[in-house]
Amino acid sequence: MRQRLPEGDAEESMINFQTSPEKYAHWKLTFDGRVANLTMDVQEDTTLAEGYKLKLNSYDLGVDIELADAVQRIRFEHPEVQVVVLTSLKPRIFCAGANIYMLGTSSHAFKVNFCKFTNETRCSIEDDSNHSGRRYIAALNGTASGGGYELAIACDEIYLVDDGNSAVSLPEVPLLGVLPGTGGLTRLVDKRKIRRDRADVFSTLAEGLKGKRAKEWGLIDDYFPTSKFQESVSSRVNHLVTQTVSLRGGNEAEPTGIKLNEIIPEIKPSGIDYKYVTLIINREQRYADLTMRAPEDALPTTPEEIKKLGDTYWPLQAFRELDHALLHLRVNEPEIGLVCLRTEGDIKNMLVVDRTLAANKDHWLIREITLNMARVLRRLDLTAKSFFAFVEPGSCFAGSLLELLLASDRSYMLNNPDERVELAVSKLNAAMLPMSNGFSRLQSRFISTPEKVDEILAHSDRFDTEAAEEAGLITFAPDDLDWEDEIRVAIEERTSLSPDALTGMEASLRFAGPETMDTKIYGRLTAWQNWIFQRPNAVGEKGALTNYGKPTQAQFDFRRT
Amino acid sequence: MRQRLPEGDAEESMINFQTSPEKYAHWKLTFDGRVANLTMDVQEDTTLAEGYKLKLNSYDLGVDIELADAVQRIRFEHPEVQVVVLTSLKPRIFCAGANIYMLGTSSHAFKVNFCKFTNETRCSIEDDSNHSGRRYIAALNGTASGGGYELAIACDEIYLVDDGNSAVSLPEVPLLGVLPGTGGLTRLVDKRKIRRDRADVFSTLAEGLKGKRAKEWGLIDDYFPTSKFQESVSSRVNHLVTQTVSLRGGNEAEPTGIKLNEIIPEIKPSGIDYKYVTLIINREQRYADLTMRAPEDALPTTPEEIKKLGDTYWPLQAFRELDHALLHLRVNEPEIGLVCLRTEGDIKNMLVVDRTLAANKDHWLIREITLNMARVLRRLDLTAKSFFAFVEPGSCFAGSLLELLLASDRSYMLNNPDERVELAVSKLNAAMLPMSNGFSRLQSRFISTPEKVDEILAHSDRFDTEAAEEAGLITFAPDDLDWEDEIRVAIEERTSLSPDALTGMEASLRFAGPETMDTKIYGRLTAWQNWIFQRPNAVGEKGALTNYGKPTQAQFDFRRT
Repeated sequence: MRQRLPEGDAEESMINFQTSPEKYAHWKLTFDGRVANLTMDVQEDTTLAEGYKLKLNSYDLGVDIELADAVQRIRFEHPEVQVVVLTSLKPRIFCAGANIYMLGTSSHAFKVNFCKFTNETRCSIEDDSNHSGRRYIAALNGTASGGGYELAIACDEIYLVDDGNSAVSLPEVPLLGVLPGTGGLTRLVDKRKIRRDRADVFSTLAEGLKGKRAKEWGLIDDYFPTSKFQESVSSRVNHLVTQTVSLRGGNEAEPTGIKLNEIIPEIKPSGIDYKYVTLIINREQRYADLTMRAPEDALPTTPEEIKKLGDTYWPLQAFRELDHALLHLRVNEPEIGLVCLRTEGDIKNMLVVDRTLAANKDHWLIREITLNMARVLRRLDLTAKSFFAFVEPGSCFAGSLLELLLASDRSYMLNNPDERVELAVSKLNAAMLPMSNGFSRLQSRFISTPEKVDEILAHSDRFDTEAAEEAGLITFAPDDLDWEDEIRVAIEERTSLSPDALTGMEASLRFAGPETMDTKIYGRLTAWQNWIFQRPNAVGEKGALTNYGKPTQAQFDFRRT
Repeated sequence: MRQRLPEGDAEESMINFQTSPEKYAHWKLTFDGRVANLTMDVQEDTTLAEGYKLKLNSYDLGVDIELADAVQRIRFEHPEVQVVVLTSLKPRIFCAGANIYMLGTSSHAFKVNFCKFTNETRCSIEDDSNHSGRRYIAALNGTASGGGYELAIACDEIYLVDDGNSAVSLPEVPLLGVLPGTGGLTRLVDKRKIRRDRADVFSTLAEGLKGKRAKEWGLIDDYFPTSKFQESVSSRVNHLVTQTVSLRGGNEAEPTGIKLNEIIPEIKPSGIDYKYVTLIINREQRYADLTMRAPEDALPTTPEEIKKLGDTYWPLQAFRELDHALLHLRVNEPEIGLVCLRTEGDIKNMLVVDRTLAANKDHWLIREITLNMARVLRRLDLTAKSFFAFVEPGSCFAGSLLELLLASDRSYMLNNPDERVELAVSKLNAAMLPMSNGFSRLQSRFISTPEKVDEILAHSDRFDTEAAEEAGLITFAPDDLDWEDEIRVAIEERTSLSPDALTGMEASLRFAGPETMDTKIYGRLTAWQNWIFQRPNAVGEKGALTNYGKPTQAQFDFRRT
């Protein structure tokens, strides 16, 4: 895992988002019956790039890739786990947050992508808590500052040691002139619902708050003296294990997990080949072709058979591959501004998969598979690239693969009486793959005519081009004479536009309708942080981020904007 | 009215936000019974700053100050008006939006403040429509592009002439590499609920869409050929006049308005004195003291008597003065980072005012006065300065003035057994002065314990310091020995922090709870626009905004962020 330098070649120094517990450098993942212990012990010299040391359990992207992997593995490999305890092996420190020197030396784009990924990891913890019922306990055996407290606040419960020193804090504003950018501000007022004036004080107090006041203000759930900390946390954990109602369906009394094996991407000069995903990079023209293939056969329909397939079961493997491709595009291919989405395969096979997922949605494995699909699709919604979907003969935009089209900024469907092209819906298009705003992509699309959502979902036939256009499912339906030209021009035009204006435009148009804590984090908070991340007061020669830890002091231009 | 240069002295070139119809250079405001005609005829040489001409009905802040004034005057001076028609006197052009050369030569801070004010003006149109029931018709007798279409989309209905040329468009992304920053993107998908893929196409199409397709996509309500345009719009206007249910209460069959006279601020080297507001600028220490004084007597309690007082009635005059002071602070005092809010006067008098406003809330004038107070308080919420409230002996944080404390980022209340200090609530604290998110400030404060809101509202006694602290109404209650030191340190600390980080932090903490179209515009959209407004792709030497209209072409760094 190495940081790609802004000027480097993509091939030379790609960041690899795959890892597994035996390779972890910074976390220990152990299991004790229904409890998983996820323990942070960051190795200061094992960094993703040069120029900084990960002291005091501070983190860089490499540390967070391990955390994301651990959460994912708990869900798939250890379904028996009901409580996850996050703690630290370092004395007196839980976690000091994102490494300042790493941030100070990173490009703007890298900072933005880093924060997006760490936000997605924290949201994945809450996704597990909300939808799979696992409880996450932050056992703060020492100070949790900045991103360290933001990690804690993503958990369900926070316990702090009362040793006279340990505190929780968000020192970004007073010390660094930037925001706590991993959801901290939003979660303070919207998740823990802390009074805004107290949140204001807390967020400007470099040293943070210790046990008593932190509890009084709602920043933690409780605090215990050092001598009783372990025991008190254990007692709470045991209580939760006993109390937690298992949300698991199916007939397995004590479910056993499936193994998530490494995805083996075949990296070529022109792109990446996976089993079900092909990514072609058109570097000169600054766009990518991403094609997803439906299953080749009708797949098994019972959870038992699916469990035997394990991580080779299409919806799991194909969407893990898509996830890998999206992260690769984000971080390793910054100049690619547009992704052309295509699908291939037999709609029948795809609909068998979706029927199976819908019929068995209460089985733990099916639930985890579907929730993972939803997370990957949200990763797509939140990717700062344009997405165009192209529906051509042989395509398979059906059910969960139709979501790719619905997630796209626009879509083109061939209109040729001689070559029938079709779309199809499934129950997964209803509410099983929600966006960050809680809406399905169909609801988001038909916000002016919500009755259309039900009409479309009730449409048992497939939609040919005319029907798809009539139903409002596609943007354009060029005929075969115009098809190639129209697509070529559309791609050329899109890739000629300002990449920054497109990022802001897409972030505004993709999320009509309700807002949630998640959309606040990715929209409002992130946009402000990105703004601050380019302000001279943070990153200029005299900026606070630049001068952190140096003998020089930050000097601000105090004009308020 | 002259633009303050970033380096200029505040005293030398202040922007004046006051105007009146006889002084308008760019708009004509005429009345025809229940219809107001607001006609744009921008004088290209009458600009707020040097270096650009306002061609094609493009606008700068000076043009928008007139528009804001016109909307305000319609509401207060012409309550009989039921329909407002916005159109243009220029042939073939309705409005070309914000002037590009003005934007290109403005400082970042000025661009941000300009957009905030124009957004508030458009929201004030919607506020009138939503709460006072007036219908706003955009009669587009020519092309409405960029901010021109954003003005149209703030209206209730949009009619476009079908002359073979006229179109609606948002060309900012394709032509300028920035966003339509006056709410356009948000209103496309959230107000007119246009399908996101169509919104995507429209927002990247420099030439926009003409009548037929614009109507089909929902961008306009209808289009008429040139020969029938006036007649068709008039017919619609007459229909609306007949149909509109008057929301006006009271006993006046045909209400007559009250005159909004000029506010006469007394500008001193140290600040500004108004009748009920005093603003002191502590330039060296970069903070301001803003004090509001309650009425000196118990004021009249009937709408008839209030009408006689006209714009000298305390709630109208005091909040108009506050509005003036806030706009002055924003635009003319950028280095002032903190505003210390104080109040003075007799709580009894204040509660008489609030009781009167609550009891007569259906009377048109009382409604307008209260809605104006709400708008001014929202202007405060949206001001990029910190606000601290200080509650001292002789203060009058009661009812609508208590909102100043509730809007503050934090508050300090003296705790001295020898000098009783009190807060008081009124019905106006319930839901009559909502924030942009639709919540009252009490709801926003007690989002974790909503039952407290009712308890506090039911509390008929005043809150002394102990009771206020117990109820959670204040942040800190220092005693008289600590008071001065604590306040001094709080001010010093606040004004030492990064102004940019504070802006982002306050924008995140002030708006817990629900999001609305307004909060999306001021949070998500504005934050992205501000980000883009500093990107080299927009404002760099080779940026699109910099190179607009020049023989040179924009050159982008295509890395997506």
